[in-house]
Amino acid sequence: MTETAVAPPATGASPEELRADPLRFGVGARITIAVMADDFADVILGALKTLDTEGLVVETTDVSTYLGGDERVLARVVTNLAEAISASGHHASISLHLSRGCPGEAICELPGGAGPRGVSAPDARATGQYAAAEWAIYPLADTVLVADDGTRTEPDHMRDIEAAIALARDNGTFRESAHFVTRLEGDLGTVLGTIFAGWTMVGRTVQHVTSHATISLNSPSHAVADAADSATEASA
Amino acid sequence: MTETAVAPPATGASPEELRADPLRFGVGARITIAVMADDFADVILGALKTLDTEGLVVETTDVSTYLGGDERVLARVVTNLAEAISASGHHASISLHLSRGCPGEAICELPGGAGPRGVSAPDARATGQYAAAEWAIYPLADTVLVADDGTRTEPDHMRDIEAAIALARDNGTFRESAHFVTRLEGDLGTVLGTIFAGWTMVGRTVQHVTSHATISLNSPSHAVADAADSATEASA
Repeated sequence: MTETAVAPPATGASPEELRADPLRFGVGARITIAVMADDFADVILGALKTLDTEGLVVETTDVSTYLGGDERVLARVVTNLAEAISASGHHASISLHLSRGCPGEAICELPGGAGPRGVSAPDARATGQYAAAEWAIYPLADTVLVADDGTRTEPDHMRDIEAAIALARDNGTFRESAHFVTRLEGDLGTVLGTIFAGWTMVGRTVQHVTSHATISLNSPSHAVADAADSATEASA
Repeated sequence: MTETAVAPPATGASPEELRADPLRFGVGARITIAVMADDFADVILGALKTLDTEGLVVETTDVSTYLGGDERVLARVVTNLAEAISASGHHASISLHLSRGCPGEAICELPGGAGPRGVSAPDARATGQYAAAEWAIYPLADTVLVADDGTRTEPDHMRDIEAAIALARDNGTFRESAHFVTRLEGDLGTVLGTIFAGWTMVGRTVQHVTSHATISLNSPSHAVADAADSATEASA
């Protein structure tokens, strides 16, 4: 995962061109995989070796890996990577940071006017692996958005967050609200699908949307809970 | 870290009362510590054993630990905890999520009008340990904020983010802008101090401010870079 590239500059492009190009629209993810085992490097490198990242820009630092490109490809690659890490059986924590609508490093080069970029939610794929996640989504709207048909959308980040949480309730991954986050539980692929779908769904009315999730895999706490559940079932 | 408590309800309190009480104002952190070693549980439990969390509400899940309370206490406790993990010598990744101005789980119970809460930036403490971090800060302002003296602040999240980055440049932790984040490097305590200071500084004009950082400790990549630097210096 050492391929690097730079998104073409936004200057001179029309809003339509910027919306159509995931890299110019700043669609991407940063992912940190922490495997809690002495052989963490082998586990991560092993998972990366078989990962097909075609269609994405990939840049790795000592803190995270940046993946840039189309939302559906991102969702597929992140799901495949997380599944491979989970299949190692090791306890691992994944930090996932999604962003769209604000390319150009820390300071946004599309300060309103190019978005929103409407895409359908990436398909989720069940993995057979359990995951728990704490999830936050940030619609970063400062300005009234005027759609092509003249519809005006006032910024209201709580309305957008509630819509994303409703999605999680609908697909069964919603577990509870907690301080600053929503707790998701279920199949790793469905949990990731919820996170990607919430991000693209809110992005239909807000140009700049980020999302952060911490995902726990193969947690010893969950194994204990499973054993307790089994014991309860066995004694029932 | 199993103490639990619930913030008193915001209803019936005046804006002054809400601003004065960190828990009612929703001041807190979620932290996930991933130690990349077989004995990860012993390392984390060992660090927690000596940690003084007096003054904070502490709730632990299988994904993260929530710490609620005053910004200065939070900064001190998070720095002490990260320092203890770093001192183990193991490679570790810390996910830190800060929030203020939006208590009440996922849906904010203070939808404008109670803030901002002005506090001075928590003091940073140098630890002698190196850290690299990727940092994002989100001023979640939907509405014009009117201060007690009548000053109006229009929402402009890029202006606020630029101010936080200027702080990092001033104290020497700024390394570069990257996709969606700012890279910080330096003493672990100074890096954490920058993150907490940016959060409280932006919070002087915006009620609801969150910040996310992924912090890498004892990275093998950094050890290699160090060795290369030493070799270069030795041959110069």
